[in-house]
Amino acid sequence: MRMLYEGKAKQIFETENPEEIIVHYKDDATAGNGEKKGTIENKGVLNNKITTLIYKYLMKHGIKTHLIKTINERDQLCRKVDILPLEVIVRNVIAGSAAKAYHIDEGTEVKEPIFEICWKDDNLGDPLINDYHAIAFGLATREELDEMYAQVKKINELMIEMWDHMGIRLIDFKVEFGKTSDGEIILADEISPDTCRLWDKETNEKLDKDRFRRDMGNVEEAYEEIFARLEKKED
Amino acid sequence: MRMLYEGKAKQIFETENPEEIIVHYKDDATAGNGEKKGTIENKGVLNNKITTLIYKYLMKHGIKTHLIKTINERDQLCRKVDILPLEVIVRNVIAGSAAKAYHIDEGTEVKEPIFEICWKDDNLGDPLINDYHAIAFGLATREELDEMYAQVKKINELMIEMWDHMGIRLIDFKVEFGKTSDGEIILADEISPDTCRLWDKETNEKLDKDRFRRDMGNVEEAYEEIFARLEKKED
Ligand SMILES: Nc1ncnc2c1ncn2[C@@H]1O[C@H](COP(=O)(O)OP(=O)(O)O)[C@@H](O)[C@H]1O
Ligand SMILES: Nc1ncnc2c1ncn2[C@@H]1O[C@H](COP(=O)(O)OP(=O)(O)O)[C@@H](O)[C@H]1O
Ligand SMILES: [Mg+2]
Ligand SMILES: [Mg+2]
Repeated sequence: MRMLYEGKAKQIFETENPEEIIVHYKDDATAGNGEKKGTIENKGVLNNKITTLIYKYLMKHGIKTHLIKTINERDQLCRKVDILPLEVIVRNVIAGSAAKAYHIDEGTEVKEPIFEICWKDDNLGDPLINDYHAIAFGLATREELDEMYAQVKKINELMIEMWDHMGIRLIDFKVEFGKTSDGEIILADEISPDTCRLWDKETNEKLDKDRFRRDMGNVEEAYEEIFARLEKKED
Repeated sequence: MRMLYEGKAKQIFETENPEEIIVHYKDDATAGNGEKKGTIENKGVLNNKITTLIYKYLMKHGIKTHLIKTINERDQLCRKVDILPLEVIVRNVIAGSAAKAYHIDEGTEVKEPIFEICWKDDNLGDPLINDYHAIAFGLATREELDEMYAQVKKINELMIEMWDHMGIRLIDFKVEFGKTSDGEIILADEISPDTCRLWDKETNEKLDKDRFRRDMGNVEEAYEEIFARLEKKED
């Protein structure tokens, strides 16, 4: 099968059906817009399983996603969409780039979630933009943005509750949306420790890609722990 | 009279009336968040006159501003307000930091104006933020932002027309708003070649602070030219 795209963490393959693709999860890990490169053993397998469990939960609660079915340890069959070139970030607690940019202590709670959109473009460094930019630069329409914000708000509420049941605080996360051939905006890409900040509720231990970004060790173990808690929860 | 604040381009003095201040226009010029420093001869005098003429025009067309009266060559009597710590930027044509950040050629027109808010904080480098940040960080309320956007939209429309009559394209500009003691949001600070990009309609010659930022020469002459055209227009 022809590879359509190779990204930093996944490969996308065509299928016989032009409306469907295979998403293949790799062990490659990058940070700082590709400045730091490495691999996290077994990450592809774990993120495939983790995304699958999260997407099933979200779909059960009314969120439309690209996931059709999980085929094997590293591959998902998904609806092919036109990805909106936006990274949609939700922050419940200040951490990472926001802590740095605004000189706010990592761990500071915000009363209302902060929604951000970044222009998904590696050459530009995925800069923060606002709705006016997105519309002026043709990245999304007003209606698409409204639909996206409505969905991401619901996803955040559902995820806060889901992670909380597993003893985890959802600090922040990034999602991507895509447009189907019939113009619907649905959740695409992945949700995993690569794309969320997840802190143990009791110990504040980081169970996400920050362990890789910050050379904290026990990276694979953190992904394993997240998968173990998710699997148990699903029982 | 006691000086309340000394900024990069102006000084603020108290008056006998706690609701009023004196805004004193200096010749000091900075660029790149204070990295580049210099003076532009006579700038204070010209920007005081230019701001006065622009604010009178805007007030005639229903915009509320802090300006009470212009006292002398360098001083204005103004209503004291609590400045919202936001720089509100309007872009009709891409230039400056936006051209750089988004790899868009300077001079590219946008179909709809782009409104941006930056957190006015020299330590942070006045970073671009969005409405969620402004609200979460306590910089403004939803209602204050709505009021601000409504006013700046009108200011842009009025200014495009005003500058056009003088043979000038309004590329972009920055304004600040403040809250009066009775909670009203009004236009404060200045509007001048320090805070606007102004290009001659025929020649595209820059008649603004970019001449200083980019060491293009004829800086004072550009400010003089803007004042001359404004003064003629008012006749
Ligand atoms: N359903 C889908 N249809 C088409 N493209 C998708 C779909 N889901 C995700 N993608 C895109 O596939 C790529 C996944 O690979 P990834 O390694 O995450 O890439 P990147 O380095 O660009 O983030 C991303 O560019 C993502 O936007
Ligand atoms: N009506 C007003 N009341 C109180 N402060 C004002 C008013 N108008 C402007 N200011 C503030 O006064 C300062 C003007 O000086 P300026 O040299 O522009 O300072 P800065 O370097 O902070 O931009 C600005 O900080 C501006 O926000
Ligand atoms: Mg990706
Ligand atoms: Mg200023």
